[in-house]
Amino acid sequence: MKKRLAITAFLACFVPTMTTQAQTTEDVPPKNIIFLIGDGMGNSYTSAYRYFKNKSTTQFVNRTAFDGYLVGQQMTYSQDAKENVTDSASAATAMATGVKTYNAAVGVDNNLTKRQTVLEAAKKQGKSTGIVVTSQITHATPASYGGHDKSRKNMHAIANDFYDEKINGQHKIDVMLGGGKAQMIRSDRDLTKEFKKDGYNYVTTKEALAANTNPQLLGLFAKEGLTKKLDRVTTPDLSVMTNAALKQLDKNEAGFFLLVEGSQIDWAGHDNDIVSAMGEMTDFEKAFEAAINFAKEDGETLVIATADHSTGGFSIAKAGNYNWYPSIIRSVKKTPDYMAKKIKAGSSASTIMKKYMKFSLTTKEIKSVSDVRKKSVTTIDNAIEKIINTRSNTGWTTSGHTGDDVNIYAYGPSSSQFSGHLDNTDQAKKIFQLINGTEKTIIDK
Amino acid sequence: MKKRLAITAFLACFVPTMTTQAQTTEDVPPKNIIFLIGDGMGNSYTSAYRYFKNKSTTQFVNRTAFDGYLVGQQMTYSQDAKENVTDSASAATAMATGVKTYNAAVGVDNNLTKRQTVLEAAKKQGKSTGIVVTSQITHATPASYGGHDKSRKNMHAIANDFYDEKINGQHKIDVMLGGGKAQMIRSDRDLTKEFKKDGYNYVTTKEALAANTNPQLLGLFAKEGLTKKLDRVTTPDLSVMTNAALKQLDKNEAGFFLLVEGSQIDWAGHDNDIVSAMGEMTDFEKAFEAAINFAKEDGETLVIATADHSTGGFSIAKAGNYNWYPSIIRSVKKTPDYMAKKIKAGSSASTIMKKYMKFSLTTKEIKSVSDVRKKSVTTIDNAIEKIINTRSNTGWTTSGHTGDDVNIYAYGPSSSQFSGHLDNTDQAKKIFQLINGTEKTIIDK
Repeated sequence: MKKRLAITAFLACFVPTMTTQAQTTEDVPPKNIIFLIGDGMGNSYTSAYRYFKNKSTTQFVNRTAFDGYLVGQQMTYSQDAKENVTDSASAATAMATGVKTYNAAVGVDNNLTKRQTVLEAAKKQGKSTGIVVTSQITHATPASYGGHDKSRKNMHAIANDFYDEKINGQHKIDVMLGGGKAQMIRSDRDLTKEFKKDGYNYVTTKEALAANTNPQLLGLFAKEGLTKKLDRVTTPDLSVMTNAALKQLDKNEAGFFLLVEGSQIDWAGHDNDIVSAMGEMTDFEKAFEAAINFAKEDGETLVIATADHSTGGFSIAKAGNYNWYPSIIRSVKKTPDYMAKKIKAGSSASTIMKKYMKFSLTTKEIKSVSDVRKKSVTTIDNAIEKIINTRSNTGWTTSGHTGDDVNIYAYGPSSSQFSGHLDNTDQAKKIFQLINGTEKTIIDK
Repeated sequence: MKKRLAITAFLACFVPTMTTQAQTTEDVPPKNIIFLIGDGMGNSYTSAYRYFKNKSTTQFVNRTAFDGYLVGQQMTYSQDAKENVTDSASAATAMATGVKTYNAAVGVDNNLTKRQTVLEAAKKQGKSTGIVVTSQITHATPASYGGHDKSRKNMHAIANDFYDEKINGQHKIDVMLGGGKAQMIRSDRDLTKEFKKDGYNYVTTKEALAANTNPQLLGLFAKEGLTKKLDRVTTPDLSVMTNAALKQLDKNEAGFFLLVEGSQIDWAGHDNDIVSAMGEMTDFEKAFEAAINFAKEDGETLVIATADHSTGGFSIAKAGNYNWYPSIIRSVKKTPDYMAKKIKAGSSASTIMKKYMKFSLTTKEIKSVSDVRKKSVTTIDNAIEKIINTRSNTGWTTSGHTGDDVNIYAYGPSSSQFSGHLDNTDQAKKIFQLINGTEKTIIDK
């Protein structure tokens, strides 16, 4: 790669039509692309995470792993007849195929036509491909890179796509890591067995993942989504899965495309659960660092990180108070959901709360949870979240998504092309250009 | 300027230590700097404004004037013993002097030491200077560029600073346009007379502003802040004041520094008033366009636009509904405040609402305002805003500020230096570097 750069720089002095852009060190098509999506990771999340990581309220705020790579933002709106704020499927389809579509669409446009995804284009060019997520591997975002369906709800059909839709006679996704046994192992089909039959290594534990040496790899570590970062004990972190995927994908001399999703930042936002949101941010940041480290070592890898939309209308401070108190959030050691399940199962609210919420709880606060201990897990969960949102002064406006632009972070060859103000469809167009030499989106069938 | 660029490009081919950065067409110190602040203009505002400007919910969303110039973001936090979300004075002092300070500080640091501002540095270098705002010219943001005080509340003392604090024997601000007669014309001093005595032209009407030919100009168009954009009849728009300032400042061969503030985007946010927020965004966008047009014509002008913080915890959509309805906001022709004052003064709620709110109002909605018509203007105002926030599905979490990063837009020579992820203090450091050749902040006394 270094040789190509030197030639470019040399030519720049003698070829008058060459643009300034072409003179930068970054404008070389990458061999590998790692595309990371923080689902729901709006601007307030990346800003808040910086507050969260710093221990003092008044001292200098240290940068996160993301900050140094900020290059721009993208619009997220969907092209839906009824809604102008996107869902994750529509946004992922836009980033994967370059086409705006309706909410819930998975790799199909508004005419229900299947569109080629950047993952498929990479496979078609002989590259290896992977998806690494903390949701089910068939959930809206990864589904939109690896499958085609009129609805994200059809996760069984999407799972079938992962196996059945071949490219050049090969399975299109070499490495699949995440949750979703329920979608892959069913009464009608056991796709884990089908993949194994075709040479895939199928793993379900951290240890088996670490021991894997097979380039074709299916790892499922939960029935549905992975255990949340804060509650996780035996399941692998997103960064561990990312590194495991990179180890295999890097074996292909033709390069690879890898999708990595911090899927549950969004789930925390839907729940207005700031503890889980910051926990999942921690997990996603480590995966981003893993990607950056790989790219820095490799020199031919483009890393892009962005979000599909923001979730929850989360604000850093609320109710006229010019403070956000991340120390409260840092002091909570398990998610509200985890505590709620323990309480529902019979543990005393007081015992559980004092064990995992390491700030000084009032009698009234404990009573507010104890009073609902016989109700649903959701009701108990909400009561705990209410205390944390009040104490940390965290604002929320919705259980759904919001329409604000989201940040783009990029590193590596051609990363400068992803700077400025983009539309989410530009992500696919630019990646198609890098992979195929044309940004034209291709209709799959 | 073109000659300097050609030499830079030529040298880049033969000087091996020169960085790639130095080869770009933008890396030349500008003669002029226009620094625009959208007070409170957080990421959700710039995103929402794009939805607001477009007529359809499902068609392609056209870019705003800002989008094409997006280069990065900045952190906004203050260094305050009690609050970790900034106010406008602290943020403006950071951007003006390069020093983090406490909330309410105007051009002074945490030791109450006066710090030189970039406006003062420009004047010291023989450049002309200006401030153009829609608030009082002595309000927190412009105050922090032109004055020094332990508190933003001391607007009389700040007004005195504008006159009394001289640089090289000259008044430090050549052009001052905005509101705030109450602070300038007082029983103890009439600063308009003092400035006139020293050769300033003092104007109070749009016509007198247009007719001005004097390089020293004081224009005050309201007792306090200017009338809001939507309610404005006789007072000049921010873009008109900006162009009037540029006309005079451009006469100085040594160049100029101009601060332009869309002051009342923030005021609308504090009030959770989306109609006024979008109205003020319209006003600020036109001023930004005026700056860009000047810079494109001139070729030696750097334009930077950013915000000091976000306000209100404003979200595009709320309450689980994946929609924001800007058509509701577009259909409101006067601000809620304007309508509330009319109703308080005796007009019927129904008549006023039907006259200025061009969507189909329900009997219940009209009654909700009519029921409070004898109460305070604020109560009536809030009742109207509640209807609009509900109908447009606009979310808010606070009457104060929030801690999220804000966008940076830049154009012109050296604009690339303002890209990526900055701290608000970097704005001053970089401008000091461009003006003085060193980023070191200077203690004024």
